[in-house]
Amino acid sequence: MADYAAQKDLNLRPHTKTHKTPEIGRMQLSAGAVGLTVAKVSEAEVMLASGVEDLLVAYPLVGRPKLERLADIAQKTRVTVAIDSWAAAEGLAEATKLAGRSIGALIEIDAGVRRTGVDPGGAAVELARRVDGLAGVELRGFNFYPGHIWLPDGDEPLHELSATVAALRAEFERAGLNCEIVSGGSTPTLFRSHEVQGLTEIRPGTSIFFDRMQVEAGVCTFEDCAATVLTTVVSTPTPDRIILDGGSKTFSSDPVRHTEDPTWGRIVEAPEARFYKMNEEHGYVDVSGVERRFEIGDKVRVIPNHVCVCVNLHERMHVVRGDEVFHVWPVGGRGKLQ
Amino acid sequence: MADYAAQKDLNLRPHTKTHKTPEIGRMQLSAGAVGLTVAKVSEAEVMLASGVEDLLVAYPLVGRPKLERLADIAQKTRVTVAIDSWAAAEGLAEATKLAGRSIGALIEIDAGVRRTGVDPGGAAVELARRVDGLAGVELRGFNFYPGHIWLPDGDEPLHELSATVAALRAEFERAGLNCEIVSGGSTPTLFRSHEVQGLTEIRPGTSIFFDRMQVEAGVCTFEDCAATVLTTVVSTPTPDRIILDGGSKTFSSDPVRHTEDPTWGRIVEAPEARFYKMNEEHGYVDVSGVERRFEIGDKVRVIPNHVCVCVNLHERMHVVRGDEVFHVWPVGGRGKLQ
Repeated sequence: MADYAAQKDLNLRPHTKTHKTPEIGRMQLSAGAVGLTVAKVSEAEVMLASGVEDLLVAYPLVGRPKLERLADIAQKTRVTVAIDSWAAAEGLAEATKLAGRSIGALIEIDAGVRRTGVDPGGAAVELARRVDGLAGVELRGFNFYPGHIWLPDGDEPLHELSATVAALRAEFERAGLNCEIVSGGSTPTLFRSHEVQGLTEIRPGTSIFFDRMQVEAGVCTFEDCAATVLTTVVSTPTPDRIILDGGSKTFSSDPVRHTEDPTWGRIVEAPEARFYKMNEEHGYVDVSGVERRFEIGDKVRVIPNHVCVCVNLHERMHVVRGDEVFHVWPVGGRGKLQ
Repeated sequence: MADYAAQKDLNLRPHTKTHKTPEIGRMQLSAGAVGLTVAKVSEAEVMLASGVEDLLVAYPLVGRPKLERLADIAQKTRVTVAIDSWAAAEGLAEATKLAGRSIGALIEIDAGVRRTGVDPGGAAVELARRVDGLAGVELRGFNFYPGHIWLPDGDEPLHELSATVAALRAEFERAGLNCEIVSGGSTPTLFRSHEVQGLTEIRPGTSIFFDRMQVEAGVCTFEDCAATVLTTVVSTPTPDRIILDGGSKTFSSDPVRHTEDPTWGRIVEAPEARFYKMNEEHGYVDVSGVERRFEIGDKVRVIPNHVCVCVNLHERMHVVRGDEVFHVWPVGGRGKLQ
């Protein structure tokens, strides 16, 4: 990621929601990231331990409890929040007063996901102008999340995105609005980010580990997937079925989209095995087409469908090379309320 | 639950995987439960704080690390483990040696779920005989999980289950094998448990809170659902859409089966609203058919699809009546590895 960003003259601000671990945030900064991205105040608090000096909360923070925590964070590091409403902007101004420090703002636009974000066609510039006039709030540009773009569908959505971003950037500039940051980038579109005209930074999250969903999206291979869940075979009730001690409380129930085979993870030791069903603590695996025999007690690694929600379910991760464990890191940001 | 169990002369051993909270375990014991059920050694460790004196681990414990922890638990309370293999039985014998105490065993049968469990037709009695001869291991009966039974499908599966259980119990008795415990019961079949001949105890889990899935299964109403997630409206980007600060990392992605409307939770304040999509931290709600207007900052309660996986995502729960908070309890057993 760092090499790609450097080659293409893009700033890298990884989304840490995938790993939620300050040690990894620190490694990302060492590798050249200009800052880090989080989705919640709790994640921001945890990520302070990485030594981050420029933190983006890519989520509108609403309500006094979150704003108080934001104010505390602003006293410890430079922080910018993505907002898409005047109400959220006013909250930000309130937090700057609590903090006695300025807080950055990005105007979040809806580039096609139909989630949060203002219409890039007009409301975005209007909101930016108003935010620019708010005491304590420093307008820094705009951001979007291109989660609607699935590359196998063809290049048209990426071209449309590029046109939208370039046009809005030109509008910001004409209006004399700061847009030092034009922030986008998802993992699926990661290595095509340089084709988006006017983009200054990318915020990939999943790419720190990759997962089965990204393999199916054509972004990486299974060999690129760095995070696995180590499970144990706890039952071999029939010759064609083994049961693993991991289910929906271990992997989450996020399916892989765009596949004919809606299974729950890839069994590293037997890729032909089908992880066909889960309960909370049980993983059902069909081994009828598998040469290798499994016995109770065997260890089985599973590449999860969606690593972000999977990591969020665990208290710690083991950092390994081969069979050697180098570190055991707590997943500091998992399971937080706000 | 306690009233029903008492009326029908069934022992109640609630499955605590739903709440994972010792305070609630203590309340269940006070209400007459004969003991508690857990799915993991970590849950057992946490649930010791409830004062439980007869704990069932309804899961085969495999591998030395879990067996060592089981041995520690056995030194603190009476514990019984459900097993479905000779390998798991030998592990149990190993744990009794480590503990210097006996450990109970139930033979888990497959009553139709096709998950773990031995064939009730023959292998069950054979395994029970062998387990009965293991030093330190105290055979106490058998157990099953009737998760395949969905009452709207009609009564036939329940009748079949009853015949299976009665026949196996008779076999145990003929063979002189202890079956003081014949343990079954899921939440969907909860109030029909007395129709299963030979059953001595039930282990409902979800019924402590109920959820949208149980409403759809016809077991309860939305008014019976005791657990909600309190979310905040963080964006109102279009008149027909609001965004809540809760998504798949808040609710999990378990769908409700057996429904035409695959949404992600019930909005208490606006039951007509459709919670139609989630990302990790975003809940997309269609309010186009809703009379009530929502503004940024509004609080919205959501009844989750599947409360067990939802609670497992949270660090604590607030115990409320109306607007008054009585307790804030840590969810002690959430997010555990083993």
